[in-house]
Amino acid sequence: MWGQEDKVLGVVGGMGPLATQLFYRMLIDMTEASRDQDHLDMIILNHASMPDRTEMIRLGRTEELFQALLKDVKKLEESGVTAIAIPCNTSHLLVDRLQAEINVPIIHMIRETVKSIKERRVGIKRVGILATYGTIASGLYQKACTEAGIQPFVPSEKGQKLVMKIIYEGVKGGNPIDYNDFIKIEGELATNGCEAAIMACTELSCFKEMYRLPDYYIDAMEVLAAKSIQVCGRKLREKEGAL
Amino acid sequence: MWGQEDKVLGVVGGMGPLATQLFYRMLIDMTEASRDQDHLDMIILNHASMPDRTEMIRLGRTEELFQALLKDVKKLEESGVTAIAIPCNTSHLLVDRLQAEINVPIIHMIRETVKSIKERRVGIKRVGILATYGTIASGLYQKACTEAGIQPFVPSEKGQKLVMKIIYEGVKGGNPIDYNDFIKIEGELATNGCEAAIMACTELSCFKEMYRLPDYYIDAMEVLAAKSIQVCGRKLREKEGAL
Repeated sequence: MWGQEDKVLGVVGGMGPLATQLFYRMLIDMTEASRDQDHLDMIILNHASMPDRTEMIRLGRTEELFQALLKDVKKLEESGVTAIAIPCNTSHLLVDRLQAEINVPIIHMIRETVKSIKERRVGIKRVGILATYGTIASGLYQKACTEAGIQPFVPSEKGQKLVMKIIYEGVKGGNPIDYNDFIKIEGELATNGCEAAIMACTELSCFKEMYRLPDYYIDAMEVLAAKSIQVCGRKLREKEGAL
Repeated sequence: MWGQEDKVLGVVGGMGPLATQLFYRMLIDMTEASRDQDHLDMIILNHASMPDRTEMIRLGRTEELFQALLKDVKKLEESGVTAIAIPCNTSHLLVDRLQAEINVPIIHMIRETVKSIKERRVGIKRVGILATYGTIASGLYQKACTEAGIQPFVPSEKGQKLVMKIIYEGVKGGNPIDYNDFIKIEGELATNGCEAAIMACTELSCFKEMYRLPDYYIDAMEVLAAKSIQVCGRKLREKEGAL
């Protein structure tokens, strides 16, 4: 759309807005650039009014969610984007169905994340999955990990409640986060022999950034950002080479 | 586009990308919200490949710039946005011409900023204008200030060069900023009796945020964010009331 040779990244975002904003920031920080024009052209849909993903899955209304997402990816396709990124793990439940309806490739955050772990953390045996109920219920991370020969660990019901509290009350709600909640989650990961854990919800990517958590926590959104830059034909900054 | 009653903000961004990303962040931080759905729906065009604004003005190629911007605002209008924000001060040279071509209102960052100064900094007599050569040459800030009874102060050629260095080498180029450059600019503002200075380039809004500069520096982009939230029918957070 902006000149014939230009590649444009389409982003279905706003799920939530803070996470998409961080995704945007990552794309900028991770691109090799010394002037505006070296950066990616993008169309970012901040679709904040999108129905809550986990809630729709819980209520059995995924069809409604699918239609809303389909409208957005079709809009981006019509705008002439090169590839589409959806910085929301829970929505990935519907990515294969969305992909079947459009020709523009949707970068699959979950498969790319597990592929990246396999390539970059050679020999890793067990990883924790920190995600919404919706993502956990979809089983997508568990399946991708198992296929890659990595054992997925899902927190107990008690731990999962704390994960949801950080996502909904903390990051999405904008309320103060009780870091003790996270210490309890870390305890479960340690006790269960996890060598790493995936921040498999983009609000947890924000949480990782807020607290500058170490690389024990693998950020799925960061993997999506790196892949988006590459798919659009731009170079990653040197320091990002070892992501 | 996302339900009949929803209001959608259109953003012509990417000039530069880091500034638009900060604008996005401001919109999120300044909106009264406790869940994703309380935030603004938006379509953000990160048009990074847009020709450099100051350079086009210098070369007498503003018509080309106008056509590129026109395509973007028309695209947003066709998408059904409620209002358009352009977080780039230099581009405002063309906003009246763009507005004449579309029905959707474009929020005028420069006029809104001077209006906000007049309302909130009662009795202020003289303000510095820190901006690109292009914005200074357009005379838009000088005119708006003069009409509001405020004396505009434009840095000397030497000071202006330092402003451009911070914008282009520092923020856009991603190189380390020599803070001594800014100290010299501050010296000029002080010597010339400025009671405040306008960060009249969105890269300087980024600079203000990076160094957590005090409210002596009035951020035009922050004014644009506040106005955008209000135009789209959302509330500002309490703390933003005294902006």
